[in-house]
Amino acid sequence: MVKKYIMTPGPTPISEEVLMEHARPLMHHRSPEFSKIFIEVTEKLKKLFKTTNDLFILTSSGTGGMEAGVTNFFSRGEKVLVVSVGNFGERFKKISSRFGLEVISLDYEWGDAANPEDVKKALDNDPDIKGVMVQFSETSTGAINDIKAIADIVKNTPAILIADVISGLGASDLRADEWGLDVVIGGSQKGLSAPTGIAFISVSEKAWKLNEKSDTPRFYFDLAAAKNYSQKTPPQTPWTPGISIIVAMNKALDMVFEEGLENVFKRHRVLALATQKAIEKIGLQLLVKDEAKRGFSVTSIIVPEGIDAKALTKIMRVKYGVTIAGGQGKLTGKIIRIGHLGYVGIFDVIVAISALEITLLELGYKLEIGSGVSEAERIFVENNYLNNG
Amino acid sequence: MVKKYIMTPGPTPISEEVLMEHARPLMHHRSPEFSKIFIEVTEKLKKLFKTTNDLFILTSSGTGGMEAGVTNFFSRGEKVLVVSVGNFGERFKKISSRFGLEVISLDYEWGDAANPEDVKKALDNDPDIKGVMVQFSETSTGAINDIKAIADIVKNTPAILIADVISGLGASDLRADEWGLDVVIGGSQKGLSAPTGIAFISVSEKAWKLNEKSDTPRFYFDLAAAKNYSQKTPPQTPWTPGISIIVAMNKALDMVFEEGLENVFKRHRVLALATQKAIEKIGLQLLVKDEAKRGFSVTSIIVPEGIDAKALTKIMRVKYGVTIAGGQGKLTGKIIRIGHLGYVGIFDVIVAISALEITLLELGYKLEIGSGVSEAERIFVENNYLNNG
Repeated sequence: MVKKYIMTPGPTPISEEVLMEHARPLMHHRSPEFSKIFIEVTEKLKKLFKTTNDLFILTSSGTGGMEAGVTNFFSRGEKVLVVSVGNFGERFKKISSRFGLEVISLDYEWGDAANPEDVKKALDNDPDIKGVMVQFSETSTGAINDIKAIADIVKNTPAILIADVISGLGASDLRADEWGLDVVIGGSQKGLSAPTGIAFISVSEKAWKLNEKSDTPRFYFDLAAAKNYSQKTPPQTPWTPGISIIVAMNKALDMVFEEGLENVFKRHRVLALATQKAIEKIGLQLLVKDEAKRGFSVTSIIVPEGIDAKALTKIMRVKYGVTIAGGQGKLTGKIIRIGHLGYVGIFDVIVAISALEITLLELGYKLEIGSGVSEAERIFVENNYLNNG
Repeated sequence: MVKKYIMTPGPTPISEEVLMEHARPLMHHRSPEFSKIFIEVTEKLKKLFKTTNDLFILTSSGTGGMEAGVTNFFSRGEKVLVVSVGNFGERFKKISSRFGLEVISLDYEWGDAANPEDVKKALDNDPDIKGVMVQFSETSTGAINDIKAIADIVKNTPAILIADVISGLGASDLRADEWGLDVVIGGSQKGLSAPTGIAFISVSEKAWKLNEKSDTPRFYFDLAAAKNYSQKTPPQTPWTPGISIIVAMNKALDMVFEEGLENVFKRHRVLALATQKAIEKIGLQLLVKDEAKRGFSVTSIIVPEGIDAKALTKIMRVKYGVTIAGGQGKLTGKIIRIGHLGYVGIFDVIVAISALEITLLELGYKLEIGSGVSEAERIFVENNYLNNG
């Protein structure tokens, strides 16, 4: 017997309640029964985004949502500014280039976060820029960008701000309308702890204006088609959606609102802090040096000299049943990542740190046994946070 | 209490066994545990396609698979021949036009099937045509195209044949390699009776040659990326896939092969025949006049004069729990469609016909009560087919 714990930044652990909903016999996607759930999920996602803008549900991974963000608002040859602090910033660049947009890059070290002043300079230098793309939480590093400050700059220009909040949503407070985010992209399998396969995207009035003039080719991810079908009676998706995932999301969203958004954010803040302090206590280095730039979804840890990252994650997974993630892109083999996102409580962090300690000892790394888990416990008690999730 | 029966051409009924698999806690998509299932599902789908070509799993509805078929093999301005016998033929045209291809249309009445000789003439007239797109079963009408005969023509030209087999797969025998189909597109929620949200696509060597020269913009549906990731150790998808759907598909595919492909095809043939003969017995007209052009997945029925199609499907659904489909596109309000596809046995057909009879009587249509269900039973007995699914 090996009990399984999934501690990655997506997929995240799914509650039994949500899995039971996921297993319900499928309703037809054009039936009023499904429509009712579809409307509810859409409204709950808007509440989570804190937006009154249109919001559409797409059947795809988050990358499909990113493609929808890139292809619905610009025309071939138009300039976009991509703020890149990691692998998903690079992905925005690739999608934009593939669809014929001219990409202006604003690159940071992986582990750093964007400086909003640089965005201001780039936009001042180039008034032709039609859109700014940025991650909220950069899943590949765990850094978080100050998208509120970036939005404050972009909203005074003709450009729209496209924010990938896929791994930040549900972990950190997000206020799409108050901050002025034009296009916001999320996914089912991160903070919501629903199954993989659904993305969603909100669209502001300013973005719709650009949509009218955009000639980038698109069909499956065409948001005007999604809008058209959402206005039918009953509201629908243009193509067959991932019905069982949307049904599961409905329950997952209920659980988020039952806990209360402020409590959910506090939980993620404390779990992240406990993980990060425990890691430092063990003697390991965090990838994101500046504490203010650390997000609450995932913690990236630099693999110490002499330790094989692949062996480390494999032992944790196979021997101890604890799945964490490795590095992506140029950080492959150099970091490991612990997700503490979604349906996760204090004992999940304890388990992950414990498994990491035991595995590091097994690989010959010197550490004071139990020092990480003790530190995590101390953080929970110190923050008066003892919610087991 | 209203017991629910889903008799639409997608989503189709899902067995309890498949729903239980669907509800399993999610494995990480980069883990060897998931990879094992991913490899198995890919191999089983190839076996179902009867192909040794590459086959890729996409997280999207069937329309996403169609977009992958359109965007991976041609370049802007190139000519494609779209054979259209219904709503999904029209969809191939729309996707092709959106991505800048020049569409040559070969249109038939909705309810008719394509004449392969017309395809030959079109290709002879225009040697620049790079691809031919066609449906196997046209879901909007229930007609089936002779894609074997069409492939026989296309394979002697430089063009590739792209076949949407989404609703035909698992109902009618399909032999991708023997017939020479270059690109074949299927979906999870039809004959397989797995949840909605996954498409899959196979690619021949001839198609890969075109892929190398194709400049149509694509990212999420880029099959070269899918190929690249499928060759990693362990094999993976480039983006996070619909994990729980793929796990469910693995069980659904096992059930298909346990029954045996020949038995599965026979079951669909008899269920379709029973449905169609019962409908005629009631006195209703089938949309597909020519018996040889009727597929085995879905039966389209012309709504008789004086009966409101919407009221008919609504009473069946709300009062009797039996969900059937209405018409699509220009057939909206003119036909109803009964799906007899996937995890469906003889008593499902009996239930659908019974509910239809009772509802028609309620709406004032004159019929001999029980004549449809009697005819269906007679067909089962006559064909010595008493498999309750």
